[in-house]
Amino acid sequence: MKELEERIKADGTVLSGDVLKVDQFLNHQVDPDLMFAIGQRFAQLFADNNITKIITVESSGIAPAIMTGLQLHVPVIFARKHKSLTLTDDLYTANVRSFTKQTDNQITISKKYLTSSDNVLIIDDFLANGQAVFGLLEIAKQAKFNVAGVGIVIEKSFQPGAQKIKDQGIRLESLAKIKSLADGQVTFMSAE
Amino acid sequence: MKELEERIKADGTVLSGDVLKVDQFLNHQVDPDLMFAIGQRFAQLFADNNITKIITVESSGIAPAIMTGLQLHVPVIFARKHKSLTLTDDLYTANVRSFTKQTDNQITISKKYLTSSDNVLIIDDFLANGQAVFGLLEIAKQAKFNVAGVGIVIEKSFQPGAQKIKDQGIRLESLAKIKSLADGQVTFMSAE
Repeated sequence: MKELEERIKADGTVLSGDVLKVDQFLNHQVDPDLMFAIGQRFAQLFADNNITKIITVESSGIAPAIMTGLQLHVPVIFARKHKSLTLTDDLYTANVRSFTKQTDNQITISKKYLTSSDNVLIIDDFLANGQAVFGLLEIAKQAKFNVAGVGIVIEKSFQPGAQKIKDQGIRLESLAKIKSLADGQVTFMSAE
Repeated sequence: MKELEERIKADGTVLSGDVLKVDQFLNHQVDPDLMFAIGQRFAQLFADNNITKIITVESSGIAPAIMTGLQLHVPVIFARKHKSLTLTDDLYTANVRSFTKQTDNQITISKKYLTSSDNVLIIDDFLANGQAVFGLLEIAKQAKFNVAGVGIVIEKSFQPGAQKIKDQGIRLESLAKIKSLADGQVTFMSAE
């Protein structure tokens, strides 16, 4: 997605340790018009898939997910992050490891809002090691709903998450694919 | 806002201790079309106020805030919640007490994204004791930006937050005002 790549080039910052900071438009300050365009693109890509629900993880996944839901006219569920839980009877839960923060979180979704007849699109802001997506896929297994695909705003293609998702036979659509952040420069994979 | 009140009546659940659960359409599962209508209403109410930025607090404030930003075409900043912080040089921080969870959090906004020339609309999903709004007003004092007003999706008018905001001379626009949750029933204030 050209507009997104240009915005990353203009307003993203490469930090040490292969970190791309995009808090100017995606995950702290958010550009609603760009999010709308992102939602439009995901909605086009999955227009023929009879999506019934969108799921994401709080907080940075919410803006792109809600804009996709607006255009597919389906509910959006954001999984909650918790340090740990004791009462989980009415919740689907999965563990998510954060490599950047070196912490484990549980993500949870209320059992009320997902059933085995749902056909779900997973949306997230970033894909690196894929821990958040694999947490949501673990919930998919528990709830027995179908995952129609995964939509990612920014994929760090040099990290293992993207390949691991594709290895499971799951459709992955990433709007910006980053080949490298070496020498403080953002290099994208060949254009879509 | 009629549509919102009807949705609260239909899909909200009153729990003990004056808790209104609206996780079917607002703060866990989210209805994007309703959020769009909410954003449209806030955008109408503040159309003549030359808003330059919208601020909210993660996570439940993000959906209504981003839909308002979409219609006012201004950036949305969501404050991050942290248990506590040591490095805060480049951050505005304020303390927020959660009465329901009996915990203290710090909320933070990067100093990069707010200046004294900004004219800011605060959006949040719920107003009860007003702690989140007062945290954002504390950041407004530090950053010296103007607060044009506060937009709330659901105000629990029987709790002190709404009056405390109005007592400071700040414009408050709440789309649903709940007079009482007594006996498990939602009673609204007189219609807008």
